Amino acid sequence: MTTLYGYYRSSAAYRVRIALNLKGLDYEQAPVNLVKGEQRLDANLARNPQGLVPSLVTDHGLVLNQSLAICEYLDERHPEPPLLPADAEGRARVRSLAQLVACEIHPLNNLRVLKYLVGELGLDDEAKLSWYRHWIAEGFAALETQLSREAGSGDFCHGDTPSLADICLIPQVYNAERFACDLSHYPTIRRIAANCRALPAFSQAAPEAQPDAR
Amino acid sequence: MTTLYGYYRSSAAYRVRIALNLKGLDYEQAPVNLVKGEQRLDANLARNPQGLVPSLVTDHGLVLNQSLAICEYLDERHPEPPLLPADAEGRARVRSLAQLVACEIHPLNNLRVLKYLVGELGLDDEAKLSWYRHWIAEGFAALETQLSREAGSGDFCHGDTPSLADICLIPQVYNAERFACDLSHYPTIRRIAANCRALPAFSQAAPEAQPDAR
Repeated sequence: MTTLYGYYRSSAAYRVRIALNLKGLDYEQAPVNLVKGEQRLDANLARNPQGLVPSLVTDHGLVLNQSLAICEYLDERHPEPPLLPADAEGRARVRSLAQLVACEIHPLNNLRVLKYLVGELGLDDEAKLSWYRHWIAEGFAALETQLSREAGSGDFCHGDTPSLADICLIPQVYNAERFACDLSHYPTIRRIAANCRALPAFSQAAPEAQPDAR
Repeated sequence: MTTLYGYYRSSAAYRVRIALNLKGLDYEQAPVNLVKGEQRLDANLARNPQGLVPSLVTDHGLVLNQSLAICEYLDERHPEPPLLPADAEGRARVRSLAQLVACEIHPLNNLRVLKYLVGELGLDDEAKLSWYRHWIAEGFAALETQLSREAGSGDFCHGDTPSLADICLIPQVYNAERFACDLSHYPTIRRIAANCRALPAFSQAAPEAQPDAR
């Protein structure tokens, strides 16, 4: 059985859950509690020297790390339904949108970064929240511009089927809502998010639906 | 003619230069001076709503953003020499190593992040440098563990030919050296970096070799 080592509120694990659901793949979950620091225990470091989640361990014992690499692997091994468009230009666009979230927004708001801001730099809650919202606002403004003006957009980030871009977008929208970011300026993002969330693959991957959600 | 909009010291542009060189593709460079804030000018925002570099504009007028998406596009359009292994497991490993740099290290040490630390949070030079070195040390420790213990490693991050992982690694090593990070604990990273730098595709992509280097 394929096992996902993750955490219900980890954006990166959330992405992999959506991908597994879209592909219709069976998997079991093994929670790694990030708040308790379990990602730093030897058992997790043996799977993931980065001390992060998620890791996906296949039924052949292959250990995969990094959420986007895992999603691309799943897409190669289980091509239907595809997470990337059939054309190279479309794939470049979807990967670019996914990476706008995964490389420009999410890394700055990771738990370990927030811990450094508070523990090492002494930020109070207000300054931490400003930091959090700043990077979401910067990234979402760019994303809204791209999604609203580019012909490739449809019901979803690219066309009318969900892709790797939506897989990255939805966990980021979840985080934005959790930290009460103002999303009124991003109507296209909100429209696409509503379309995604209407699909069981997305709703069943939501943090609150996971076995380790408190 | 393919045009790369970049900046000599941008790690992400550096990655694309290496990929273009490995593929033996002709391109011209159009510098976007990040220190002068040219990435925020309308001309750049029209290409790249994220206000970032690099963008690659192909001879067909296609505009591509996000360095890893650009590299994958180049690899699909110009398959030889490949930037990813032939097997799905190998591709997952190379993408995972690339993303360890591109999603866990580099985003935290971007110019815009350093500006926020100084401008908004009032960090002094020493605290900024500690931040910079901290994320490199965290990421490189994990990378060293993976590269030294995994059978996939060779003369390069994966096997004996350069891949997307090396394309991400070398600009990050350049940054680490520029900010005088202690690399003595990462012998495998240093060995692989030396092998990469011996190749013209890498040395000709170095910041100092670019037309906009001061």
